Amino acid sequence: MKIALAQLNYHIGNFENNILKAHQAIEKAKEQNADLIVFAELAVSGYPPRDFLEFNHFIEKCNDAVEDIALKCEGIAAIVGAPVINWEGKGKPLYNSAVFCENGTIKTIRNKTLLPNYDIFDEYRYFEPNHQFDCIEFKGKKIALTVCEDLWNLDHNPLYKLNPMDELIQQKPDLMINIAASPFHFEQARIRKDVLTRNAKKYKLPLFYVNHVGAQTELLFDGGSLAINDKGGIVHEMKYFDEDIKVFDLDDVNASKTEAINHIAPAQVIKEEKIELIHDAIVMGIRNYFNKLGFKKAILGLSGGIDSAVTAVLAARALGGENVYCVLMPSQYSTEHSVSEAVELAENLKCKHDIIPIEDAYHSMEETLSKQFEGTEFGLTEENLQARLRGVILMGLSNKFGHILLNTSNKSEAAVGYGTLYGDMNGGLSVIGDVYKSDVFRLAHYINKDKEVIPHNTIVKPPSAELRPDQKDSDSLPDYSILDEILYQYIELRMGPVELQMRGYDEELIKRIMKLVNTNEYKRYQTPPILRVSSKAFGFGRRMPIVAKYLS
Amino acid sequence: MKIALAQLNYHIGNFENNILKAHQAIEKAKEQNADLIVFAELAVSGYPPRDFLEFNHFIEKCNDAVEDIALKCEGIAAIVGAPVINWEGKGKPLYNSAVFCENGTIKTIRNKTLLPNYDIFDEYRYFEPNHQFDCIEFKGKKIALTVCEDLWNLDHNPLYKLNPMDELIQQKPDLMINIAASPFHFEQARIRKDVLTRNAKKYKLPLFYVNHVGAQTELLFDGGSLAINDKGGIVHEMKYFDEDIKVFDLDDVNASKTEAINHIAPAQVIKEEKIELIHDAIVMGIRNYFNKLGFKKAILGLSGGIDSAVTAVLAARALGGENVYCVLMPSQYSTEHSVSEAVELAENLKCKHDIIPIEDAYHSMEETLSKQFEGTEFGLTEENLQARLRGVILMGLSNKFGHILLNTSNKSEAAVGYGTLYGDMNGGLSVIGDVYKSDVFRLAHYINKDKEVIPHNTIVKPPSAELRPDQKDSDSLPDYSILDEILYQYIELRMGPVELQMRGYDEELIKRIMKLVNTNEYKRYQTPPILRVSSKAFGFGRRMPIVAKYLS
Repeated sequence: MKIALAQLNYHIGNFENNILKAHQAIEKAKEQNADLIVFAELAVSGYPPRDFLEFNHFIEKCNDAVEDIALKCEGIAAIVGAPVINWEGKGKPLYNSAVFCENGTIKTIRNKTLLPNYDIFDEYRYFEPNHQFDCIEFKGKKIALTVCEDLWNLDHNPLYKLNPMDELIQQKPDLMINIAASPFHFEQARIRKDVLTRNAKKYKLPLFYVNHVGAQTELLFDGGSLAINDKGGIVHEMKYFDEDIKVFDLDDVNASKTEAINHIAPAQVIKEEKIELIHDAIVMGIRNYFNKLGFKKAILGLSGGIDSAVTAVLAARALGGENVYCVLMPSQYSTEHSVSEAVELAENLKCKHDIIPIEDAYHSMEETLSKQFEGTEFGLTEENLQARLRGVILMGLSNKFGHILLNTSNKSEAAVGYGTLYGDMNGGLSVIGDVYKSDVFRLAHYINKDKEVIPHNTIVKPPSAELRPDQKDSDSLPDYSILDEILYQYIELRMGPVELQMRGYDEELIKRIMKLVNTNEYKRYQTPPILRVSSKAFGFGRRMPIVAKYLS
Repeated sequence: MKIALAQLNYHIGNFENNILKAHQAIEKAKEQNADLIVFAELAVSGYPPRDFLEFNHFIEKCNDAVEDIALKCEGIAAIVGAPVINWEGKGKPLYNSAVFCENGTIKTIRNKTLLPNYDIFDEYRYFEPNHQFDCIEFKGKKIALTVCEDLWNLDHNPLYKLNPMDELIQQKPDLMINIAASPFHFEQARIRKDVLTRNAKKYKLPLFYVNHVGAQTELLFDGGSLAINDKGGIVHEMKYFDEDIKVFDLDDVNASKTEAINHIAPAQVIKEEKIELIHDAIVMGIRNYFNKLGFKKAILGLSGGIDSAVTAVLAARALGGENVYCVLMPSQYSTEHSVSEAVELAENLKCKHDIIPIEDAYHSMEETLSKQFEGTEFGLTEENLQARLRGVILMGLSNKFGHILLNTSNKSEAAVGYGTLYGDMNGGLSVIGDVYKSDVFRLAHYINKDKEVIPHNTIVKPPSAELRPDQKDSDSLPDYSILDEILYQYIELRMGPVELQMRGYDEELIKRIMKLVNTNEYKRYQTPPILRVSSKAFGFGRRMPIVAKYLS
């Protein structure tokens, strides 16, 4: 039996596009004599469709798409992920299903059992869990067909009370197929390979695994679909960050001698590969955000600092330098070297760039507010004014020329609220909002590894917002190295103040940082979607009350 | 047996405050010889604590709070809502529990069975559902104790497969107690009374029901706790939009002859009471947003239009006119009557007001962008510029004087994207963002019912953004009466294009409106939290992908 795995980049709700992609993949698979083609979880709708799932019309379009794909299944069978109506009349209205199509029609359906409902996942909002377990017979083979999370209860995950494969294995299947939507973070591919290969090894079955690829707003799918033999050895790993279709002969996979290896790496290895992975993921994220929205050109403010520099490089790599418009908006507090470094970078990237000084606009705004501000001192308000006037300029250009504004804030700033709402926090998409400042530096070094793209001085000078004379980030924030460590442990690892103290951090510093994080939730509530590259990004995966008083 | 119901306004994560409130309520209940005092669902943490529940430290604080309350239970028992650790080692890490405290200690715990996971609810993200059913014996009576949603499967709600009361009734309880967190929308109190009274009637048991009161950011809890007799008659309805503690004698409730009535009203009645309810809910929402954040003063832009007028009135009623700073920012396109009407309103409300013309700042910004904008026409970009400069002014004043900016956008605008991101869409809180324009008019009439607070002309003139000469909303939008009907059916009722056509609306108009709604998701993603007064508000209760292509 020949099995084609179709790792495709779907577009949520764009049924025409998704069906066309499926049709083309079926043609390709047929050309290579595949008996069966496997598409990803919720392939017809794209993942995650969120509350579109609550619209009957949307579900009808999903059904139509499945039937459309089924019609193409002559001489080939297909497994396709789709939301399917729960006709039982009890429980949630839908299942998250794997639909088995053969001979131009839907032959049978298997539903997802373990529904993730944590972090960015909301599946219990829409779907009823499955409680029936049956293999599918096809060409004399028994297929244990599951959906994504269904294989993630190997070690008796405390979240779940069932393990679907423990049920299915009783029917003595010949192979496992799992269709998935497993979003990227920089450790996820290793975790995924670990879980999937251990499934194959435990049940002594080959496993064919199909993931999504491409970005859906903030969620990045890295692909990396797998064919694994019954020893848990990876026979083939499909492309990362790109579409891929590959046909496997079941006999060849069964005959493969590849042995299982340990995919979980020591911290040092993770650290080394992390920056490249984040780089590639973000480039894909920007590219898909633009092409799925039908836009070509980006605009951003280039300050001479490292955050906007790294953002500009990533944008240029995603969209082409000619499609990235860099705007320098110096004020009286901007240093000369910042302007010259920003120009140098824009030239290195072959980006169009303009210098638009904000002094006149700033003075005019001071004048406008002079009566109200009379007798007050220059302070945070005036710093914010500069950032907001820059925001007005960038949005004006964005509106006028149809460019999407890219936000250049990093995760450390977003965490502690070091940024101006409706100023530098503006943008359609936050590019590095899930990258701590320390990793922004690493990204800059990685970008410069072969030649100097980002001017050296941009990387080595002390970070500054340049909103008042001789300002440095370190005037108001702890050193980024310590700040980022504490933030990581609080945000990603969800440690409390006592645990952090036990790890040797200063009690007052912990308190100050946690207070900053918690009291700035109101700012993060209004920020653009953030490309997610860590296991806990701000946005949909981290849901916090605004009006609260806890560690604040 | 005497039962005290404590309907309190908690503050999320503010354990000190929440414990103090509980202690004070216990003292009051003791003074009135209550045997038992009942607090609301998740009373110790406030509702909803969201992802704070994922922090061990937060859960420890909840446990400490429960123990603290238990210690006060000498001579009185208490039922208190709290998250409780699931020690079974399988399933989600927490239960949403009702803790029964007696003699200074925790006597027993009952867990919530039916976990809402729709709209604004995310309970399956945190909690394991209960599967064990036992009444609690207290003072010779058997109490069937449940948590909120547990009583909401009376009519075999298709969402759930269990009905906790059908289990508990087998143990022949003497009364039901339900602790809840039931957020307001303008029909919710009626629906709640319908469901709860029918429970009492069906199981032939008296029911004591305790709800939260007060606002938690966008979620408004209206209180209205209930004592219901075994015929389904409401013996007492506690205060709406305010704290209340009331002691009931079980014998008196049992002896009450009040009969069940139908609480579900015809559309016309709902329509009549809706505006007053929305008015009161929003006033509470603003007041709590400010006092829980520790702020006193609000700022807003007063345009002379109806949206900002209604917002100003609601703010003045919540905070006092002296705490609302109204800023008029006329441009060359502002009409004289708009300025004079805005001034008149501010004077009616005794609000401080300033007139800050934006023409100079606007010309300066035009000048700043003159090279880039050369040869282009005045258009949407320039309209947005004006709105954004107003945003800069308001945020400057907000930063300088520590006032929170109130957003004045209505739901119709938010739906179709008729507003400027980082301009008039700014604010810490959206006051009327869940009120359709047609209802904003009704609110204005309601406000003026006894005397003219909002100048008559503000209400009757055709709506205009006044961003170019002779602009009217109706130039670019359908009439609000039709627009709002279609929006309501699409957003609240989730109808599709075919259903709307069948109801007689023009196909092209439906298409145009749905496209506007769906393509403007990116704007709504970045808006302030919106006080929720309908069954489907933008924000946390309506989760949509941004990069999608569906009905767009």
